[in-house]
Amino acid sequence: MKYYAGIDLGGTNIAGAIVDENNKILVSKSVKTKSERGFVPIADDIASLILQMVKEANLSLEEIQSVGVGSPGAINMETGIVYFAGNLKWENANLGEYLTNKLNKKVYVANDANCAALGEFLAMEEGKNYKSMAMITIGTGVGFGLILDNKVYSGATYGGTEYGHAMLVMDGEDCTCGRKGCIEAYASFSALLRDANRFVDANPQSYLAEIRNANGELTGKDLFDSAIKGEEDAVKIIDRFLEYIGTAIVSLTNLLDPEVIIIGGGISPAKDYFLPKLKSYVDNNRFCKQVASPEILVATLGNDAGIIGAARLAEH
Amino acid sequence: MKYYAGIDLGGTNIAGAIVDENNKILVSKSVKTKSERGFVPIADDIASLILQMVKEANLSLEEIQSVGVGSPGAINMETGIVYFAGNLKWENANLGEYLTNKLNKKVYVANDANCAALGEFLAMEEGKNYKSMAMITIGTGVGFGLILDNKVYSGATYGGTEYGHAMLVMDGEDCTCGRKGCIEAYASFSALLRDANRFVDANPQSYLAEIRNANGELTGKDLFDSAIKGEEDAVKIIDRFLEYIGTAIVSLTNLLDPEVIIIGGGISPAKDYFLPKLKSYVDNNRFCKQVASPEILVATLGNDAGIIGAARLAEH
Repeated sequence: MKYYAGIDLGGTNIAGAIVDENNKILVSKSVKTKSERGFVPIADDIASLILQMVKEANLSLEEIQSVGVGSPGAINMETGIVYFAGNLKWENANLGEYLTNKLNKKVYVANDANCAALGEFLAMEEGKNYKSMAMITIGTGVGFGLILDNKVYSGATYGGTEYGHAMLVMDGEDCTCGRKGCIEAYASFSALLRDANRFVDANPQSYLAEIRNANGELTGKDLFDSAIKGEEDAVKIIDRFLEYIGTAIVSLTNLLDPEVIIIGGGISPAKDYFLPKLKSYVDNNRFCKQVASPEILVATLGNDAGIIGAARLAEH
Repeated sequence: MKYYAGIDLGGTNIAGAIVDENNKILVSKSVKTKSERGFVPIADDIASLILQMVKEANLSLEEIQSVGVGSPGAINMETGIVYFAGNLKWENANLGEYLTNKLNKKVYVANDANCAALGEFLAMEEGKNYKSMAMITIGTGVGFGLILDNKVYSGATYGGTEYGHAMLVMDGEDCTCGRKGCIEAYASFSALLRDANRFVDANPQSYLAEIRNANGELTGKDLFDSAIKGEEDAVKIIDRFLEYIGTAIVSLTNLLDPEVIIIGGGISPAKDYFLPKLKSYVDNNRFCKQVASPEILVATLGNDAGIIGAARLAEH
């Protein structure tokens, strides 16, 4: 049996696991990131976490096939340099080299969304021979990872696969990146809540206003639950939200035509509601209707995807 | 010396050439497509044209390294089936097999925009070691071709690389594909002329109105020439047009981060005007500013690109 160590470095937590070659998690641990601490204490905590987990798995570091870290931001997968990571306020942080020196073992680093895509790709691949996959993560933002020809794709300068910042509505809503109209400004939960709150502000007698008044705020779950129950305003807001996501999938299909598109993130639990709608939207709106649309699936690994993908980076 | 035969099948002309391994054209010929004739007479004319050109080059078909055809539409590069080509009104036309049988020699078929991209890629590659390139052709529509890892990329089901039909302004201007807001509905010459004619309709005393009145219509060249001369209204219209193209390039860079982006088509002659503007737009608007932007170049082969790319399909 082969063993791997993976870390998912987030703005809030550093989560890690030791996994085996079947992507089974043997040991998992996490510590708070406390991002305000800056690079060195965080990188040291990552190294410690790896060593602790290896020990708890009754393994030595030599028995670990490969070690990988998924980090937010734009990352050079060859050098392990994090060019920048907004959440962590890092610029040109040499995470790969630092950890490699600290552990005296090669540590691979890649973008967290790419690691999650790789994790889901490996989970899905069992029994299927897919070679290309795109993963769209609908959470606070819109994450994206791309597998082409069985490998994590990250572009010529490792500045790529930020599909959340492709244009959806030029000159449209403000995006977190400073531009207007990106996919993330429409197809993220932040955008959904912005739109729902606008609706409630304009319709203070509505059912959704009652929910907001009762709970102090609206959540994505409130909106999906209400839509699933057939509450008309929520259905309209969620259906429009799904059109934004669907349009992002259609553009991606028209451009890259991947075999599979996986939807992950906070939207996943509502899959029975959104998956049929998304599929028919894509079938009806894609450019080339003469060939089969990509399979659209929902992510199955949840938060473990990034850890498992990171653990297996060396091979992909 | 190795020799290749390439055909660029268009809605108006079937153009072909015999080229050598340095992409030098030895013989070139063309005949009218007369697309209303349907599949068989057109395919027969392609076969005849190839045989005539081979003869004029004082070669035999056996001496030709490979034969390729660039066709409009979505094409399965493995089988040579044209799934559909709107211009030609073909559906599931088995062009590859028909020509292979007719000539008794394997004939490769690919999308014309992909062939043009490959032709430009080969022309550019001399002396440079690029591995990835996207070509955006700004003409009546918006064509697109993609080279990844030295190969023509066309997606899992050969339905891909129709980037002209990725979204730019959701619910925006009507597109030829039946949807609204695609890149082609903003970044093509048809779109530019639509916008310019709207401006003239609303401003009948303007300089551009004078040109339209004098010539009966406006052309893309009129608009670029006027903008180059500094005529204010034309500058505004062209600058907005370049923002549409620039935004399409930014989205593509954020997603795929290719090494080079080549701009081809009718816009090419105005390169001194548009290239600096496009480059600075991309530098200022791309998501990841920590790494170098893709090189943006203007196509150099003109109409020969598709023929040369088709001729070299077998190798890429």
